[in-house]
Amino acid sequence: MNLKVDLFKNVIGSENIITEVEGLKRYHCTTIPEKRRIDAVLKPGNKEEICEILKIANQNHIALYPISTGNNWGYGSAIPVKDNNVILDLGRLNRIIEVNTELAYAVIEPGVTQEQLYTYLKEKKTGLIMDPTGSGPSCSVLGNTLERGYGITPYGDHFNAACGMEIVLADGEILRTGFGHFSNSKVTRVFKYGTGPYLDGMFTQSNLGIVISIGVWLMPEPEHFEVCFFGSDEKDALGEFVAATRWLLLNQVVKGSINIMHRNRILTLMMPYPWDEMNQRIPLDDSISRQIAKQRDICEWNGVVALYGTREEVLASKKVIKRVLRGKTKRINFVSEQLLNLVEKYQWIMGPIGRMIGMDIKELIKVLRPSLDLMKGKPGEVSLPTPYWRSKKEMPEANINPARDNCGIIWLAPVVPLTKEDAEDYISIITPILNEYGFEVCITFTAVTARAFDCTLPILYDKADEQETNRAIECHKKALKACMKNGYIPYRFGVQSMDDIVDADDVFWKVAGKIKESLDPNGIFSPKRYSLR
Amino acid sequence: MNLKVDLFKNVIGSENIITEVEGLKRYHCTTIPEKRRIDAVLKPGNKEEICEILKIANQNHIALYPISTGNNWGYGSAIPVKDNNVILDLGRLNRIIEVNTELAYAVIEPGVTQEQLYTYLKEKKTGLIMDPTGSGPSCSVLGNTLERGYGITPYGDHFNAACGMEIVLADGEILRTGFGHFSNSKVTRVFKYGTGPYLDGMFTQSNLGIVISIGVWLMPEPEHFEVCFFGSDEKDALGEFVAATRWLLLNQVVKGSINIMHRNRILTLMMPYPWDEMNQRIPLDDSISRQIAKQRDICEWNGVVALYGTREEVLASKKVIKRVLRGKTKRINFVSEQLLNLVEKYQWIMGPIGRMIGMDIKELIKVLRPSLDLMKGKPGEVSLPTPYWRSKKEMPEANINPARDNCGIIWLAPVVPLTKEDAEDYISIITPILNEYGFEVCITFTAVTARAFDCTLPILYDKADEQETNRAIECHKKALKACMKNGYIPYRFGVQSMDDIVDADDVFWKVAGKIKESLDPNGIFSPKRYSLR
Repeated sequence: MNLKVDLFKNVIGSENIITEVEGLKRYHCTTIPEKRRIDAVLKPGNKEEICEILKIANQNHIALYPISTGNNWGYGSAIPVKDNNVILDLGRLNRIIEVNTELAYAVIEPGVTQEQLYTYLKEKKTGLIMDPTGSGPSCSVLGNTLERGYGITPYGDHFNAACGMEIVLADGEILRTGFGHFSNSKVTRVFKYGTGPYLDGMFTQSNLGIVISIGVWLMPEPEHFEVCFFGSDEKDALGEFVAATRWLLLNQVVKGSINIMHRNRILTLMMPYPWDEMNQRIPLDDSISRQIAKQRDICEWNGVVALYGTREEVLASKKVIKRVLRGKTKRINFVSEQLLNLVEKYQWIMGPIGRMIGMDIKELIKVLRPSLDLMKGKPGEVSLPTPYWRSKKEMPEANINPARDNCGIIWLAPVVPLTKEDAEDYISIITPILNEYGFEVCITFTAVTARAFDCTLPILYDKADEQETNRAIECHKKALKACMKNGYIPYRFGVQSMDDIVDADDVFWKVAGKIKESLDPNGIFSPKRYSLR
Repeated sequence: MNLKVDLFKNVIGSENIITEVEGLKRYHCTTIPEKRRIDAVLKPGNKEEICEILKIANQNHIALYPISTGNNWGYGSAIPVKDNNVILDLGRLNRIIEVNTELAYAVIEPGVTQEQLYTYLKEKKTGLIMDPTGSGPSCSVLGNTLERGYGITPYGDHFNAACGMEIVLADGEILRTGFGHFSNSKVTRVFKYGTGPYLDGMFTQSNLGIVISIGVWLMPEPEHFEVCFFGSDEKDALGEFVAATRWLLLNQVVKGSINIMHRNRILTLMMPYPWDEMNQRIPLDDSISRQIAKQRDICEWNGVVALYGTREEVLASKKVIKRVLRGKTKRINFVSEQLLNLVEKYQWIMGPIGRMIGMDIKELIKVLRPSLDLMKGKPGEVSLPTPYWRSKKEMPEANINPARDNCGIIWLAPVVPLTKEDAEDYISIITPILNEYGFEVCITFTAVTARAFDCTLPILYDKADEQETNRAIECHKKALKACMKNGYIPYRFGVQSMDDIVDADDVFWKVAGKIKESLDPNGIFSPKRYSLR
């Protein structure tokens, strides 16, 4: 191990190499129940250093595992797929290289966090907003894009909003995709495909190169912004919400995404597991869950959709949404930013108004504000309480980091067609499995296209409890297998599941393997990550 | 040559092999000034036959050039990049394999034409519409998608609307992309990326495999549909229209594309070259062009944008469009389908009404109807008069086929950022070059993203005139070089230009070459098509 590391000292200096246990700790932290032997961490500062590192890695057959910020929580955080990799931490490459306000894009490096990009766009008064994921301020924008993550603004499909990559290949050559490889190109950041084969997709969810910069399309701050919250306790609610979602998205009434959440999922955002009410039992009783939800004005199924546009457009969309959901909701509320600002400003009248309309407005604002902020491009920590649900530890007030705090969360993220039948089928598949292992089902349906939901299902467990941890592993395996058998394939996998999807007999993986062989013959990049090799 | 062909007789029978001059004729027809030796045409009927053909081609190092319908007009039609290929005509694979009306998609084979898909969707009352290109009813939907062509409805980016490919590889294996390779997958047509590397882009504008079926997302027929036509003769018109287009698209007020056309381009849609007015001279005088345009109520710059949605939404969009274009147009008209239907129904009052508002309504309808139809998903021949502009031949009434009729058109399709400066810069680059060689400049700016125009510029020449043909070749070369030097790179190239873009010293083409090598080691697919090999 030390021999390996010595080779890199001349390139980046020992101050940018981590080998001691204490320093490696944060790289071992993960919310999934997996451990890896990590040989060392290298922290290069620029692409020249990366190229030098690759030379050494090729000569010595050293496996490198590049990370951006390493916060891929619930999918493995920073840990490699296999033991004995050297982590290549790209966090020092954190420049915002360019922001074009007229054409609404940024060019960024791997280390640029959501918080950093958000702050830049705001402080420079660019009039542009980004699409944040719920994963919080400290996560990498580029890293999430390469994992094909998503948010819920109109730019929610991050890979789709990426335009032009700069990639260091295993042989040290620099590949510029799209139009980026044509000298003088003025169109690298405005048109994705370039000319000839469109290669960008190959470098997402794979191990074929190190993306060191990427163009990211940004959205102009809308003239008007409003969020629609709707909910229902009826038996048919889910099916009706699914049909309405499909209609609204296929007809492009809504520019962004639509989210349909089960009450259990919302509870995980608002509180820890109700140990007292449950008398320390698991999983959460449906009747207790319903009772707590009722107290907090949460329905059985809860929808949220943000509206962006001119005042005229938002007004028109509201009319259409009301029409489509007529008779199908217990409640439907539209919250504008102006309204929220007003209520926050006049805190002293909140109480009386709340009592008048039968709501705890103060409590409501605590959730509403960060939710609205997120939908308007401000990364926040609104989704981060979820991993602490079963943890017996207190969640910190700020700088929430579920991996550091040893929270237990494994994501299972199957894609489900946007139909009532499929949504119900999916629930009927996963519910008995999660319950069998002592976990409650915390469902979100996020429409990532007009035709498909991404159903990020968290398996939330107490990582301090060895038995529960083992049950979480078994539960995830069984639920994953059941989803795949029934045709609901996840859009993204954790490092623990690579062997469950990559199959040497499948032509797809054979083709991907041939490409891997031709671009990285020594297999120095992230062995086995979405790959045969 | 005959030896080669004999090998295939056992596979597809001699009735599906063409070698005689008369039968090969239509494959030689092209609107660009290029000729190829074509050894033969094979017409397989299914994928098993294709696989058998590939075996023989590999064993004998025979170069195959797959075409869908072979109507890639202005880019080479059916002719291969190099001599002595065997054309693989996939026209017999013309099944519409599936149409899902709930999730709004179709699965089609290469031979399915725009007309065929349109008719199917209409006759089966699916309530769905396709995005047609201007290339006419006989063109392949799949072929255009693989060339990354586009239309102007909200589904105008055809590659972006493609979901799941089935590909025959050179070794005869079948690759299913996206989620298609997972057994039981229910999500192949609703989510493009699948899991692991997203490979579809590799198979567009390339020569790595034969795509034998593809999923195509379709749009629900809108509740309401209206088209906005606007125009201006002012000096600043273009710059102002570009700024308005950018704002409307970045803010997603408009769901589809926006087209800005110079009067010359519109004239090519409406009439042949005005030989008499020009006293047989070329290129078209600006003053004559302006005069003819004036008679036909065409402005210097003319914009068109279709609005799709509910009545409320279209009304809102109209308000915003009027606001954005206020004071910037000579005229702005909104034409709804209902209005057009009404006018057509009451033909007898057209005359008087026309005189009242100072317009030749009958003439107007002749262009309006097919334009509106196209924007509402009906493929038509509205764009096909353009190639006949300089031809001395009469254009047929129906079944227009510029390649068959020996029309002269070479497309140059640079991408230009959506800014005033770039649009004007582009014009200043191409205008002197086209004029120098005796061609008028017929510009369209089509916004293919909210940030980029695709500027399909036709070089229209009389193919019967050898000198003019030679000038067209030189002009195209020089204009292409100038565009590339100035950073406006074309999104798509004709078969004559492959050597001008593919560069052995460029990492991008080296990477594409390595992939080619690994997937098609004998180089049997379309040698040199967007490729080093």
